Amino acid sequence: MTDHVTLYGFWRSMAAYRVRVALHLKGVRVHEIAINLDAGEQFSPQFLAVNPEGALPALLESGQPALIQSMAILEYLNERYPDPPLLPKDLHARARVRSLAALIASDTHPLIVPRVRNYLTSNAGFDHAAWRSWATHWVTRGAAAMEKRLAEDPATGVFCHGDQLSFADLCLASLIIVARTIKFELKEIPTITRIVARCEQMEAFQRANPLQQPGAPA
Amino acid sequence: MTDHVTLYGFWRSMAAYRVRVALHLKGVRVHEIAINLDAGEQFSPQFLAVNPEGALPALLESGQPALIQSMAILEYLNERYPDPPLLPKDLHARARVRSLAALIASDTHPLIVPRVRNYLTSNAGFDHAAWRSWATHWVTRGAAAMEKRLAEDPATGVFCHGDQLSFADLCLASLIIVARTIKFELKEIPTITRIVARCEQMEAFQRANPLQQPGAPA
Repeated sequence: MTDHVTLYGFWRSMAAYRVRVALHLKGVRVHEIAINLDAGEQFSPQFLAVNPEGALPALLESGQPALIQSMAILEYLNERYPDPPLLPKDLHARARVRSLAALIASDTHPLIVPRVRNYLTSNAGFDHAAWRSWATHWVTRGAAAMEKRLAEDPATGVFCHGDQLSFADLCLASLIIVARTIKFELKEIPTITRIVARCEQMEAFQRANPLQQPGAPA
Repeated sequence: MTDHVTLYGFWRSMAAYRVRVALHLKGVRVHEIAINLDAGEQFSPQFLAVNPEGALPALLESGQPALIQSMAILEYLNERYPDPPLLPKDLHARARVRSLAALIASDTHPLIVPRVRNYLTSNAGFDHAAWRSWATHWVTRGAAAMEKRLAEDPATGVFCHGDQLSFADLCLASLIIVARTIKFELKEIPTITRIVARCEQMEAFQRANPLQQPGAPA
């Protein structure tokens, strides 16, 4: 595989993390450029020219418009580079994987992104503790809902769906690993803990670790 | 098409709306059961047995586990009933459609669902006006971002992507039509207004209209 792409990411971005893992799994060579969300670099003219939405991640292939939105990028990478597959073949199994992924990527993550923090601190009087409570509430809720679905469904295996890695594992790991990195403690999630530990044995996840990325704290 | 499915929805649910349109487009016969979100019916033991997440929509096919999460359901319906296709064939075009859909389904809609309102009114002292400001902010932001992307990209046509209906149109219509129904005024979105008006000429969108559903106000 000699393809080469540019990923605009940030060390603790959950959405950039899942794309980074997929690129490593698919064997796509990637050069990552850090966009410092804390410094507001997502709103610089240079980055807005890549993604007018001012959000991470963005994936740039030579001669193509930038790809944005992490789940759209995962679907693209899985269609462009079918091996290894990150969705099962059975239609109901695919729907289960996508619905588990959406529980993280749609129901949980969008509530704790910088633009929401900015609104709550600027317009709703949230101090640091109120923001932390808000974020803890949604991360805990998402993890608990995921744990319940995984633990109660015999379709769960070594990974979220059977013994084959999928979008669901990438999204789950993005939440759990970034939460751990920024010191959100999550309790009573044994199934999740087992699955994420298994993911972290794989090189693609190790290389994607937030603390290994440009701009991460030492 | 003689398939018959049960959709658990609610008249003003944006997520149920997009699934309803897809079912009508694909010619799937559907029986809809109203789950009254205002009365908290999503947390009744009967509905939690269908979807333990207590969220709409859920789609039930005979003998199968319920399908949940609207975008996972749309992908499923598009794979199960390929005609008419709701994604283009070209991989970059598919990524564009999915990223436009995600701008609504992931970046916008999850911020204004009942569980978020409950948190803000119960834990953050939001009164009705503060909630309305919050919801207006995110709906306006989502619509403005969508308008900018659609208006500036030559890939936009009669619909969000060229002249073929796609997930992006279903998600866009779900936001705009439900917002209109609950009296959120959106301004300066000419491209969106044109596309949604075109969608509303189609029977599938007319039949899916919030005010035509069980439980809607007279």
